[in-house]
Amino acid sequence: MSPTQSPSQILLDVLVVVVAAKAVAELAERSGLPAVVGEIAAGLLVGPSVLGLVDEGPVLAVLGELGIVLLLLDVGLHLDPGQLRDVGRPAAAMAVAGTVLTLGGGWVAARSAGQPADTALFLAAALTATSIGIAARVFADLRRLDSVEARTVLAAAVVDDVLGLLTLTVVTRLVVHGSVSAVSVAFTVAVAVAYLVVSGVAGVRLAAPFFRAVERLSRSPGTPLALALAFTLALAVLADKARLAPLIGAFVAGLALSRTDQREQVAQDIVPLGHLLIPVFFLRVGVDVDLAAAARPAALGLAAVLLAAAVAGKLACGLFAGGPPVDRLLLGLGMLPRGEVGLVFAGIGLQQGILDAERYGALLLAILLTAVATPVLLRLRLRRSTP
Amino acid sequence: MSPTQSPSQILLDVLVVVVAAKAVAELAERSGLPAVVGEIAAGLLVGPSVLGLVDEGPVLAVLGELGIVLLLLDVGLHLDPGQLRDVGRPAAAMAVAGTVLTLGGGWVAARSAGQPADTALFLAAALTATSIGIAARVFADLRRLDSVEARTVLAAAVVDDVLGLLTLTVVTRLVVHGSVSAVSVAFTVAVAVAYLVVSGVAGVRLAAPFFRAVERLSRSPGTPLALALAFTLALAVLADKARLAPLIGAFVAGLALSRTDQREQVAQDIVPLGHLLIPVFFLRVGVDVDLAAAARPAALGLAAVLLAAAVAGKLACGLFAGGPPVDRLLLGLGMLPRGEVGLVFAGIGLQQGILDAERYGALLLAILLTAVATPVLLRLRLRRSTP
Repeated sequence: MSPTQSPSQILLDVLVVVVAAKAVAELAERSGLPAVVGEIAAGLLVGPSVLGLVDEGPVLAVLGELGIVLLLLDVGLHLDPGQLRDVGRPAAAMAVAGTVLTLGGGWVAARSAGQPADTALFLAAALTATSIGIAARVFADLRRLDSVEARTVLAAAVVDDVLGLLTLTVVTRLVVHGSVSAVSVAFTVAVAVAYLVVSGVAGVRLAAPFFRAVERLSRSPGTPLALALAFTLALAVLADKARLAPLIGAFVAGLALSRTDQREQVAQDIVPLGHLLIPVFFLRVGVDVDLAAAARPAALGLAAVLLAAAVAGKLACGLFAGGPPVDRLLLGLGMLPRGEVGLVFAGIGLQQGILDAERYGALLLAILLTAVATPVLLRLRLRRSTP
Repeated sequence: MSPTQSPSQILLDVLVVVVAAKAVAELAERSGLPAVVGEIAAGLLVGPSVLGLVDEGPVLAVLGELGIVLLLLDVGLHLDPGQLRDVGRPAAAMAVAGTVLTLGGGWVAARSAGQPADTALFLAAALTATSIGIAARVFADLRRLDSVEARTVLAAAVVDDVLGLLTLTVVTRLVVHGSVSAVSVAFTVAVAVAYLVVSGVAGVRLAAPFFRAVERLSRSPGTPLALALAFTLALAVLADKARLAPLIGAFVAGLALSRTDQREQVAQDIVPLGHLLIPVFFLRVGVDVDLAAAARPAALGLAAVLLAAAVAGKLACGLFAGGPPVDRLLLGLGMLPRGEVGLVFAGIGLQQGILDAERYGALLLAILLTAVATPVLLRLRLRRSTP
């Protein structure tokens, strides 16, 4: 009954997506690559570039959007706001250093590859944010999620997501509108910071009593899950109104929910939802790739210099961590993977005409290579440091 | 990145849907009405008829379509093919009698209310199928799901769903194309029966070894759920190719899965998915209602005569059950509720121009009233028969 797709077309699209995502997850598991890389490859395969089994359409749009929100909700749910605060100072220093270094280095790299100034700025900004999801997953796979290094990296990734999103918001407007006034930048930053402070503080403080009250009043099954989803979607929509990415709202919601009595049940209930929906987001990234454009020599050259800047900026940021003596190279390696924020903004860049298919492909390739390289490099470093 | 809706619009639509569905589920729980009635009412409320918070769009189309598939998968999963077979003869007799009586009675009723012959046939056909989902839920709420009557009603509901879908497929083509040849009807029925026999027998026989093999080979988490969903979606898409409703394929998939070792895990994993998605289907039914058209006297009159025919046809069919001495009025009352099949075909009728807003509203009202009346009447009957 959709105006655009028949019911059975919708079901067929979901079928292709589920089968493709599951098949590559199995392959990724066997080859030791992060599943996210496999999912993007699966999108490339089933999308218009190769097999043409699915197109960008309502199924990918709706399920993918819910998927990225669920991923960040899940990451937030599994972090303890208190533990993040303990590593706050070194993490903040690392995040700021990493953002500034990547932004500067990325800009120089893109300019050297012949990009116009504003496109170079957008490409550099899209590389600033470390992926919370991939970093968390790599440390968990290596059984190091409870180390000081892992906690520092995750806290820094949270901060640089916010910094990266602010940078990208400003840069996008700069590129689209040609110029922005200092006042409008200040206003954007103020609204975003206000959102984060209010939703973060109020969310973490009020979520627990609110959920307790609703739980007491509720009589129908499934209420904690529905309430958690509604809370998350509301914060995501508000984040969008504050010109931040919806996924930041979902992350804040997860942090707030991690302090409620319903945390365990919600974390358990969203697992099957996540299994279905999260891969769709990454698959869709691959569907959007125009393989022919991304494989041109110019695109490959741009990808190479962007990758170099992305790696150098984050490796160096580990040196700024200060704090207790830790393995600073390990910190830098942990900060390497780019992911959801970069991909979201690559999509926005494509949609708004800031990036053409060639630049989009190059940016995606650089992001993907950081994600592929991180688990390999981290494993090597850990093997050397622990006898 | 959807061509039709922005990401935050998608999230906002999902938010409205989740909150509305949950709020009415709570109200329904308190008032003793079936949740499905509340969900349709919520759709009316948030849809264009009243508040205008959501429109028919990609969110409702994609999530609603997955919701109805999940509902039938869930119903099938919880039935034991063996137990259904034990009550097969009385159930089949009841199903055939109920379908014929409702079809005839409904046609006479609609004609008496001044409907053209082919519209009357479509309206009558849309009333033939007892809702497996609602019938199962009402017996479960009354803690009578293990009684002979409940099992007979559920088996009969399965058979009359198939009969109803076949009738509606033929009638829809008759109304749309003006006439159908005996050959084309025979071909339709043959393809549908072939689908049911092949998917039923092969599905039930092959699902268990197939799932066992994949489980042994699989290394990534979430495989049973993904596999079950893929299996269900594949059977749903094939059902559509055989001109049956996709939901029949989902039901067959559920029956087949109920014989696998993964049954428990799949049944558990789809609970949170169902909590999120199933209400969307029923909500969407309400969103599609044009309240102004449905409240016209002509529509209300048509609804009244359709309701009378729908109730009379199913109450009488209990008399045909034969078999061991059981409470035949209880059987008839159990067969009363109409639901998903009727609603799906009301939607098709609206979409294909067979029904206008007024007739669609009348049909919906008749279906809803059977669903509302059933739990009340069944409770009264049970109180009288068990001291």
